[in-house]
Amino acid sequence: MQEENSHLYNRIAYTIENQIYNDVLKIGDRLPSVRIMSKEHGVSISTILQAYYMLESKGLIEARPQSGYYIRFSPRKFPQIPIMSQPKSLLTRNNAEDIIGEVYSGIADESLMKFSLSVPSQELLPIAKLNKAVTESMRCLPGSGTTYENIQGNEKLRRQIAKWAIHWDGKLTHEDIVTTAGCMNALSFSLMAVAEKGDTIAVESPTYFGILQLANNLGLKVLELPTDPQTGINPDTIKKILATNKIKALLLISNFNNPLTSIIPDDNKKEIVRLIEQYNVPLIEDDIYGDVYFGKGRPKTCKTFDTSGLVLWCGSVSKTLAPGYRVGWVAPGRYLEKIKRLKMYHAVSSPSLQQEAIARFLENGRYEHHLRKLRNTLHANSLQYTRAISEYFPEATRISRPEGGFLLWMELKKTINTYDLFREAIKHNISISPGRMFTLQDQYNHCLRLSYGLTWNEKTDNSLRILGDLVRQQWKSM
Amino acid sequence: MQEENSHLYNRIAYTIENQIYNDVLKIGDRLPSVRIMSKEHGVSISTILQAYYMLESKGLIEARPQSGYYIRFSPRKFPQIPIMSQPKSLLTRNNAEDIIGEVYSGIADESLMKFSLSVPSQELLPIAKLNKAVTESMRCLPGSGTTYENIQGNEKLRRQIAKWAIHWDGKLTHEDIVTTAGCMNALSFSLMAVAEKGDTIAVESPTYFGILQLANNLGLKVLELPTDPQTGINPDTIKKILATNKIKALLLISNFNNPLTSIIPDDNKKEIVRLIEQYNVPLIEDDIYGDVYFGKGRPKTCKTFDTSGLVLWCGSVSKTLAPGYRVGWVAPGRYLEKIKRLKMYHAVSSPSLQQEAIARFLENGRYEHHLRKLRNTLHANSLQYTRAISEYFPEATRISRPEGGFLLWMELKKTINTYDLFREAIKHNISISPGRMFTLQDQYNHCLRLSYGLTWNEKTDNSLRILGDLVRQQWKSM
Repeated sequence: MQEENSHLYNRIAYTIENQIYNDVLKIGDRLPSVRIMSKEHGVSISTILQAYYMLESKGLIEARPQSGYYIRFSPRKFPQIPIMSQPKSLLTRNNAEDIIGEVYSGIADESLMKFSLSVPSQELLPIAKLNKAVTESMRCLPGSGTTYENIQGNEKLRRQIAKWAIHWDGKLTHEDIVTTAGCMNALSFSLMAVAEKGDTIAVESPTYFGILQLANNLGLKVLELPTDPQTGINPDTIKKILATNKIKALLLISNFNNPLTSIIPDDNKKEIVRLIEQYNVPLIEDDIYGDVYFGKGRPKTCKTFDTSGLVLWCGSVSKTLAPGYRVGWVAPGRYLEKIKRLKMYHAVSSPSLQQEAIARFLENGRYEHHLRKLRNTLHANSLQYTRAISEYFPEATRISRPEGGFLLWMELKKTINTYDLFREAIKHNISISPGRMFTLQDQYNHCLRLSYGLTWNEKTDNSLRILGDLVRQQWKSM
Repeated sequence: MQEENSHLYNRIAYTIENQIYNDVLKIGDRLPSVRIMSKEHGVSISTILQAYYMLESKGLIEARPQSGYYIRFSPRKFPQIPIMSQPKSLLTRNNAEDIIGEVYSGIADESLMKFSLSVPSQELLPIAKLNKAVTESMRCLPGSGTTYENIQGNEKLRRQIAKWAIHWDGKLTHEDIVTTAGCMNALSFSLMAVAEKGDTIAVESPTYFGILQLANNLGLKVLELPTDPQTGINPDTIKKILATNKIKALLLISNFNNPLTSIIPDDNKKEIVRLIEQYNVPLIEDDIYGDVYFGKGRPKTCKTFDTSGLVLWCGSVSKTLAPGYRVGWVAPGRYLEKIKRLKMYHAVSSPSLQQEAIARFLENGRYEHHLRKLRNTLHANSLQYTRAISEYFPEATRISRPEGGFLLWMELKKTINTYDLFREAIKHNISISPGRMFTLQDQYNHCLRLSYGLTWNEKTDNSLRILGDLVRQQWKSM
């Protein structure tokens, strides 16, 4: 019953949102009363109230006492999204590592407004339920989890991950999966499995700094490719660089890229897989954000279209359940044996407790239930943040328009240096991620990444206002 | 009071053991009655009973009903220990990896007598107390351990490890330590920090197969050095190979080497550290067995004598508390920043729960209490196993004489192949580790490693008898 209701109010809210976007409903317009809507749609009053409440939480409508609901903001008024990236092609390095170090050095400070961290805030995590799952696991595991876990990973967890893959048309069994210490560890083993020191890999640009630093650390050269903030990397781009025969592997964040928030359309994913098969080049797919979609269904993955075992699909629960549990995985296709050995040599096995706890959480529908709530909150957050930024920041600010994930990628005026902005903001206890972190070249200095994983409230709103003021000051002074 | 008593009966048992060893007391001799001993030593009857019980548990004396205690076995009668190893110097590889895979594939089989596994059996672990510590940790950690832990590692744990280092005269603070996913992960980061693909490292021979396979996997060449089963690697050997200037790093298991069980005397450790300082070559020290000593005190480490930061000291609780927790650490000296970055890029952070739980366990003396029991049991086991083997195996069998750890290293007749023996033994549900696993060369085919971490009882005794019979069959047939 609750399930059905949830679908109903979602559908009604979605319809109204569309009407606002298409200017059928304009800012200042009054919405039909709850009673009338209830009659028109043949649903209960509480369903309409839930739909209105949802739109209100997204900042699109507002209730005026004794009067009713009014349109407050249109998604159409959102700032422009950033243009296609044009990364510099030099294979050089510089001081991104130092900036990363500086941004993350203060991360334990409780008083800091951490727009810099791409994780859900603690209030969004199902902590009590996870604790229960850990306690259950202690009771049920052999030796209460003190003995070595299966090297490939807890079998129950691998079965659940394989089952979950149905959501993106994945055809996996537990034998195809190796568990890891979070997604980063999955990427690390994957890179070690497919490339050697001196090899060149190709990535989106900008991309997650952890990937760039890891590649750097392994002695790999990194080619940063032009990436569209909405549709991600283009198959044509992939084709061109594969044709050079100089690329040992691709590494893509296919869904809700960090930091660009782009998502590669499913047809393009299919074409990309066709291309890597043609050129026999492995693709490491970081799908860590895939479950946090705001649209109607789970986007597919490149792995969905993989028939040759060339896609190493990586994921984790660090963005949805418990970053600190360090539970991740990889389905490495034809590199399975290599990855199993890498895991054995570098870490022997992963802790049992957290793997078993996550398996139990996935097993009985708790994950699906939690995700539905998380997605709604994050979607609402993304709109609230965007609206606030469009109010507080200079008009020429460009912002990405995420359809999932935690992040906004912003482009300011070219003359603004976001590392300077970071240093100013930190004085106000606000932490952001300067664009320079997300590349190995000297670029994106006028860009920044902002996480909306923090709860939306007066304090976040106010922090964005301060940030906007700081930007305006720099904007004017040049 | 209990403390004092424990020292007393230990001392009395030690004195008698010495007398047996020196033939002052001979096999078949009757020991003085408990009453007389009590009077002579001026201690309580229960103290004498405990001393006798201890000697009995080691298999050295036996109680005969209505008669008293009699000498049953002399440590002097132990089989000869293996001779100094003479590893082949070729830098080639072959099929150790396959043997390792085969030995470990059956490791989850509950019915298997796992002499092949170098871990304490579950009954020796303080599981209930660890569970309590995990529950406490869930209650106290921010977000119950769901949020990212400090990248360098849980601070409380690092403080406890630093404090614990006093036992081997270590001068560490929590800032000097990085926590890892077990000791293997500490070795992996350490190797990545000090050497690159193509470099050569030097190790003891035989040595732990995980180290050899890891080095292999990282593209490192491995020089296996002659090692004495009692005193380990000789400083002269180290000096000679350092003088060639071809060694990028040393990796030694300084205390109770796996599989040889050798321990480098503290003076030699000091000299080795002097040499690596002279040649400016880093030493990765695997001290995973250091706390499991049978003698009077904790042996020192190479790190004890390190003033230049060239020693990367690695450890874990996998051999003493909970293999499955994956809690290990490294104090990397001058490589600290490099190791912190490696950890960040390859795994971000380690799970909070287990780190916090172990910290709590160390904090309040529970660890010391547990170790005392564990050491006594393992010491008794080592003697029981050795006595049994000397009874069941051909007389010419050589066995190492461990002063700590879990392992026995055995040399059979040169014509016996212990991989064949492994395959025979597995049919009887007995698993052993063939010597071939512990080298990258084609050698040690007539050696094997046996763990005495399994509880000593009729079943283990019987399994050793079967193993002895299998060896005798091979022995005769050639």
